[in-house]
Amino acid sequence: PVKRMLRGQIENFIQEDLGYHDISCQMVPDTIAEAVIFAKQDCVIAGVEIAEAIFDYFDIEYTRKVADGEKVQNNDVIFELKADTVSLLRAERLSLNFLGHLSGIATLTRDCVEAVNECSEAVVAATRKTTPGIREFEKLAVIAGGGDPHRFNLSDSIMIKDNHRNIMGLENAILKAKEMASFTQKIEAEVESATDAILAAKMGVDIVMLDNMSPSEIISTVEKLRHEGLRNRVIVEVSGGINTENLAEYAKTGIDVISMGSLIHKAQWADLSMEMKDSFMS
Amino acid sequence: PVKRMLRGQIENFIQEDLGYHDISCQMVPDTIAEAVIFAKQDCVIAGVEIAEAIFDYFDIEYTRKVADGEKVQNNDVIFELKADTVSLLRAERLSLNFLGHLSGIATLTRDCVEAVNECSEAVVAATRKTTPGIREFEKLAVIAGGGDPHRFNLSDSIMIKDNHRNIMGLENAILKAKEMASFTQKIEAEVESATDAILAAKMGVDIVMLDNMSPSEIISTVEKLRHEGLRNRVIVEVSGGINTENLAEYAKTGIDVISMGSLIHKAQWADLSMEMKDSFMS
Amino acid sequence: PVKRMLRGQIENFIQEDLGYHDISCQMVPDTIAEAVIFAKQDCVIAGVEIAEAIFDYFDIEYTRKVADGEKVQNNDVIFELKADTVSLLRAERLSLNFLGHLSGIATLTRDCVEAVNECSEAVVAATRKTTPGIREFEKLAVIAGGGDPHRFNLSDSIMIKDNHRNIMGLENAILKAKEMASFTQKIEAEVESATDAILAAKMGVDIVMLDNMSPSEIISTVEKLRHEGLRNRVIVEVSGGINTENLAEYAKTGIDVISMGSLIHKAQWADLSMEMKDSFMS
Amino acid sequence: PVKRMLRGQIENFIQEDLGYHDISCQMVPDTIAEAVIFAKQDCVIAGVEIAEAIFDYFDIEYTRKVADGEKVQNNDVIFELKADTVSLLRAERLSLNFLGHLSGIATLTRDCVEAVNECSEAVVAATRKTTPGIREFEKLAVIAGGGDPHRFNLSDSIMIKDNHRNIMGLENAILKAKEMASFTQKIEAEVESATDAILAAKMGVDIVMLDNMSPSEIISTVEKLRHEGLRNRVIVEVSGGINTENLAEYAKTGIDVISMGSLIHKAQWADLSMEMKDSFMS
Amino acid sequence: PVKRMLRGQIENFIQEDLGYHDISCQMVPDTIAEAVIFAKQDCVIAGVEIAEAIFDYFDIEYTRKVADGEKVQNNDVIFELKADTVSLLRAERLSLNFLGHLSGIATLTRDCVEAVNECSEAVVAATRKTTPGIREFEKLAVIAGGGDPHRFNLSDSIMIKDNHRNIMGLENAILKAKEMASFTQKIEAEVESATDAILAAKMGVDIVMLDNMSPSEIISTVEKLRHEGLRNRVIVEVSGGINTENLAEYAKTGIDVISMGSLIHKAQWADLSMEMKDSFMS
Amino acid sequence: PVKRMLRGQIENFIQEDLGYHDISCQMVPDTIAEAVIFAKQDCVIAGVEIAEAIFDYFDIEYTRKVADGEKVQNNDVIFELKADTVSLLRAERLSLNFLGHLSGIATLTRDCVEAVNECSEAVVAATRKTTPGIREFEKLAVIAGGGDPHRFNLSDSIMIKDNHRNIMGLENAILKAKEMASFTQKIEAEVESATDAILAAKMGVDIVMLDNMSPSEIISTVEKLRHEGLRNRVIVEVSGGINTENLAEYAKTGIDVISMGSLIHKAQWADLSMEMKDSFMS
Repeated sequence: PVKRMLRGQIENFIQEDLGYHDISCQMVPDTIAEAVIFAKQDCVIAGVEIAEAIFDYFDIEYTRKVADGEKVQNNDVIFELKADTVSLLRAERLSLNFLGHLSGIATLTRDCVEAVNECSEAVVAATRKTTPGIREFEKLAVIAGGGDPHRFNLSDSIMIKDNHRNIMGLENAILKAKEMASFTQKIEAEVESATDAILAAKMGVDIVMLDNMSPSEIISTVEKLRHEGLRNRVIVEVSGGINTENLAEYAKTGIDVISMGSLIHKAQWADLSMEMKDSFMS
Repeated sequence: PVKRMLRGQIENFIQEDLGYHDISCQMVPDTIAEAVIFAKQDCVIAGVEIAEAIFDYFDIEYTRKVADGEKVQNNDVIFELKADTVSLLRAERLSLNFLGHLSGIATLTRDCVEAVNECSEAVVAATRKTTPGIREFEKLAVIAGGGDPHRFNLSDSIMIKDNHRNIMGLENAILKAKEMASFTQKIEAEVESATDAILAAKMGVDIVMLDNMSPSEIISTVEKLRHEGLRNRVIVEVSGGINTENLAEYAKTGIDVISMGSLIHKAQWADLSMEMKDSFMS
Repeated sequence: PVKRMLRGQIENFIQEDLGYHDISCQMVPDTIAEAVIFAKQDCVIAGVEIAEAIFDYFDIEYTRKVADGEKVQNNDVIFELKADTVSLLRAERLSLNFLGHLSGIATLTRDCVEAVNECSEAVVAATRKTTPGIREFEKLAVIAGGGDPHRFNLSDSIMIKDNHRNIMGLENAILKAKEMASFTQKIEAEVESATDAILAAKMGVDIVMLDNMSPSEIISTVEKLRHEGLRNRVIVEVSGGINTENLAEYAKTGIDVISMGSLIHKAQWADLSMEMKDSFMS
Repeated sequence: PVKRMLRGQIENFIQEDLGYHDISCQMVPDTIAEAVIFAKQDCVIAGVEIAEAIFDYFDIEYTRKVADGEKVQNNDVIFELKADTVSLLRAERLSLNFLGHLSGIATLTRDCVEAVNECSEAVVAATRKTTPGIREFEKLAVIAGGGDPHRFNLSDSIMIKDNHRNIMGLENAILKAKEMASFTQKIEAEVESATDAILAAKMGVDIVMLDNMSPSEIISTVEKLRHEGLRNRVIVEVSGGINTENLAEYAKTGIDVISMGSLIHKAQWADLSMEMKDSFMS
Repeated sequence: PVKRMLRGQIENFIQEDLGYHDISCQMVPDTIAEAVIFAKQDCVIAGVEIAEAIFDYFDIEYTRKVADGEKVQNNDVIFELKADTVSLLRAERLSLNFLGHLSGIATLTRDCVEAVNECSEAVVAATRKTTPGIREFEKLAVIAGGGDPHRFNLSDSIMIKDNHRNIMGLENAILKAKEMASFTQKIEAEVESATDAILAAKMGVDIVMLDNMSPSEIISTVEKLRHEGLRNRVIVEVSGGINTENLAEYAKTGIDVISMGSLIHKAQWADLSMEMKDSFMS
Repeated sequence: PVKRMLRGQIENFIQEDLGYHDISCQMVPDTIAEAVIFAKQDCVIAGVEIAEAIFDYFDIEYTRKVADGEKVQNNDVIFELKADTVSLLRAERLSLNFLGHLSGIATLTRDCVEAVNECSEAVVAATRKTTPGIREFEKLAVIAGGGDPHRFNLSDSIMIKDNHRNIMGLENAILKAKEMASFTQKIEAEVESATDAILAAKMGVDIVMLDNMSPSEIISTVEKLRHEGLRNRVIVEVSGGINTENLAEYAKTGIDVISMGSLIHKAQWADLSMEMKDSFMS
């Protein structure tokens, strides 16, 4: 089936890396070569379909050894490639930049998901803190890591945030959101207190997001929601200041979703490399 | 003067974050509000002109308090903004995503530059390991941090890398590069041994890049170059496996440039936020 | 605030109508003229912000006399315009094509909404049967008419349709959708029988869409859902074969949403015109 | 040969319908399926090449059973398709939206053409009242219906309209148009009186368009042109207020062309559908 | 009024000349400077509106001293400019490249037009032999020089050429063209003999183009057309092998149009330059 | 390997030449034909890969008889083509416009290169005076002709020009350039006197460009540089007022590079044509 990247998109990325006259690619002899893309560290792979779309563009034959979301170990091969050498050199950096960046996100996400899974059913989710221009691919990396992408943009579902409360008050904001929302959309309210959480849940929002609360405040808020009979009516999400160290603590508070911008903005690239097959195997 | 981002570029980024029908922005009252963008940690700022281009697009009035490359401390204000509330909400995440991502790169670069400066004149440089789609902005962040952007794409200067050596041999590759290069371009050869470094320098490349060598190997190679009377004819660059911990060791080896993909691919975003002015000041 | 159309989008539409050398515009004298856009029939107006974006592009001063969603009568003025004559001629057809097409949709939607409102609380919604390239604007026209836009594209919320049932069975499809959905998304299942409606509701979908059922089948299905205690857990939508004649009958069946592709694909343009002010007033 | 839609164009339309993460398509099993696109009403088909371009994009094998401009009856198959199920789901709505919208225009055009053919040699033509963004496809639908597309944009031929007369007077406008026109272009003048029609014909315009005149006024104007010996020198076009009811009356007035914006802006979509082959045949 | 270049177009041209990091522009002090664009040879100016669009993009204030189509002499000033120095440097080459290239075309066209005017009423016209990507601007330069742009693309009017005759024969091609043409389009037939010219004229084409005929053959063909009473029914165009030397000879043959690809493909740029005002005046 | 033109680029060029409804292409019978592209004059060919990319787009089978940079003689075949006739007609003008324009540049460049080679080792180089939109292709034509492309845009290497000297003085400009340059870039200073040439060389620029100097001034400047021991440290380029007549004189002055805008802006197209195979061979 069609890869997850449109051809016009790929061309923008290619143009960025190739420039007008890539002598260092054109100067190699016009022969067919084989190469591998392999891991230089343990990691979870993401971006495989994007790499394939790049290979397709350059008429590179490939065998995919790993799917998105699979763990690989140091030296594991991800792709076997065969093409004229010019095309291999042209596709090298771009495919590695996508695979390295996205696998880094998938790997960090997987770590968080596994940490949470040990003590909770909660879902780990991303946010809109993503690198401009490639959000859709970063969200796919979160999914590959086992996380939830959360909304893709401002039009996806309606989220009432701190600046909304500052501008128009929580109650007003919820009323307005319900008036304007499509029946196909969920409404989420970010709150900073149990009182507001209860208000939001009573008013019928689908998701309550507890922002920057401590684990104990969260436990107490969940308890109050249960006491009011509202716990099952809302999805409870927590966010703010959550990192790999304190993640477990938050996971145990009885909430449904932990969203972490850091899945993306603190992820470090996975170390992947492309090598001509002869040198790789020797 | 014209900002460092073309208007057509901005629209692509805006479209990604807005989607088709951003109710959560449109639902706020049509009033004028003031806001600030401020730091929630110490960092070096980058991306200020890009944020300004975004503000211009949304007709947001701004006062810039900090320039690219300046250090700020927790709570320092970077921009004061004034606009209708809809536009502030629309510009918020996109401008923060750029500022946060780029300031993270500038901050890490500055750390490395300062570490090197303590013991050497060497330059810290980036590589082509950049996030697809925004290389030019990431390179500007490296510059803001005090680093050298290195080449922007495959057409900028000619770089002979390991895969070239595997395909056609070092000597052949240099000959071919010299034949095809414009007189306006520099030629750089990546090598893994002192012998190859000397060969490349003798053949007249402008830059020799010592790849994945240990500090002692580097010292010995530099010495051999000097001994052959070639040291002043080439710029010596080192790369591979250099991180914040071992950076100083490499810096002291007598080389000219240390290039580190990690300036970009291990950088973590700076924590910045936008708040309505009233709430920020209270 | 920023209009609902990006400047790059407008240029595509302008280019389509102008071509390379629009002599018939350029041949008029270089003077300032005033013009009005007015209605030649009663209708509900939509597309006002898009027209404004076009006027902005051509530096046309305008006074808007009517907002999206307002009813106008024959001869009512929608915009007063002032600009050089060349620009007025260049903006004329494009702005009228948008206003006429979108106001036609808004007008038909309003008719349906008013018909439903007389006998029900049900919402009238659009579908994905929209003219390629301008879906976002057609959805806004539906909103202007008082309708619900339904999802904007295949990624907005998850909809299980007849072809899913044919390919993988309803139960399987719902299980898969629940597994893959983000917690921020709603899941909708299209069904053709009461049995399937109950199955879907029991499995926890957010919206059940009764496809191509007669009013009596719908009434009976709603009753069965109520009997199973599921009525309040799902939004019930009906679709298929509903038109302005039989709309009331469907509206009275106790469902929540009536979706009609015909809001868009059977709408006829509203008749609007631009005239130089002198001729309009004489 | 190359289809009538450039690949870059198709991607814009695909992106509109797919969004970032189309779970409802991706969730189906990765198998090959067969499907048909068929008519649910009698109609004239248009847009076949555009559908083919979409199928090509998604690597869908197709057999076309009907060409543009052919009449089909309820249940007639237009395309037989074979592809992986994901691709079928992705191509479904977009191809149907084009085929349905364009076949609606072709069907209405054919009705008008046939009505005219019964009593006249006159040509039925479209106008520039087209849906923004897809004019070229709507014009092709008019051609499929047997109509004349008229000019595609403001640069195609030179048309002097009411606003030109208001701004600079008819005589002046014709003089200026003749001065600026290329010898490859025709000049058309829209007039509202026999006197102006004669003036325009005498001045050598190629086409006189009688705007908003009654059939009897038209007959009298044609007679006066003949009397002045001008009838054979100009093409006479009528427009304004012509609909399917009064079309025949206008057709009999001795004119050459009847142009009707309504071919496009009053057309209703043809009802077409895609179904998996098994369900279609059972 | 709006300039003859869309903003999105300008950005493509700017991007080509600026690249990612234009140090040589950015390194100048941030001051306001004045500059002039002036001629270094006598020439006819074209492209003034395009230069203005570029200046607008860079917020450069300008006073235009010359309009398209005007003759200037060595040292004449075309634009006075005022802006920050960075923007002046950024706009310099692009605006000069357009002005120089287009003024070269206008100058050569004017020479040809004046040569023809001395002995004939014939029009001098361009062809579709234009530089890919900027045809519309080159055609405007021809107009500025006093020439006729001829058709802008393959859809403008219908032209039957040698390859049509080879493929389907002249008569067949004319019949097919008449069948497919819109009534708003002219039909032109390229012929190589008097016999074909008469055939084409009899069949009602609007323009007959005598291809690669000698002046005497042309004279004889025109005479035969006159003899058949066809001369006034067709525009007679000649083309092929016409240059500045033999132009007068062709002009005197009694034809209507002389089309010359060489207006564009043999034109040499006009020599224009930008200089800071102080240096220019000293 | 991938051709030197991205598919998205090609589509822009195609759209320019095809327009919306190219009847003159569509009207030919749907048969397969063979054609040749051949030279109608002696010339050096360039643009072969671009033509191939266009043929690929239109699914035209081709056999390339000549490579970029090869000389052909009148009547030599450059491409043999086979495709449906519609596609041949659609590809004809665009491929010829590229081949003709670029071969013209290659031919003029080759003439200059050969003239220089007779008396010097100097390189002939282009400038940034290129036709907007197709610089990369024109630079490739210069390379095909044996010339050096010089820098592709303002970001490629740093060039200090007359306007820099006017604004900030030569010394200052060099200091600033060295401060801002990447170690991967060369710095070039344009000077108008021997004194400035020596200053620039002493300050360490890589290239000194002697602007608008006479051959005797150049000889004297080169001598002074040698006297100061600077000759081998800099590449010496000359530019300004150099044409095919005086080229040899400049070539003998002992400089390294002669750059000539005229390679592009005075080049005249090579005369190439496409013909159906039957007619070509008869």
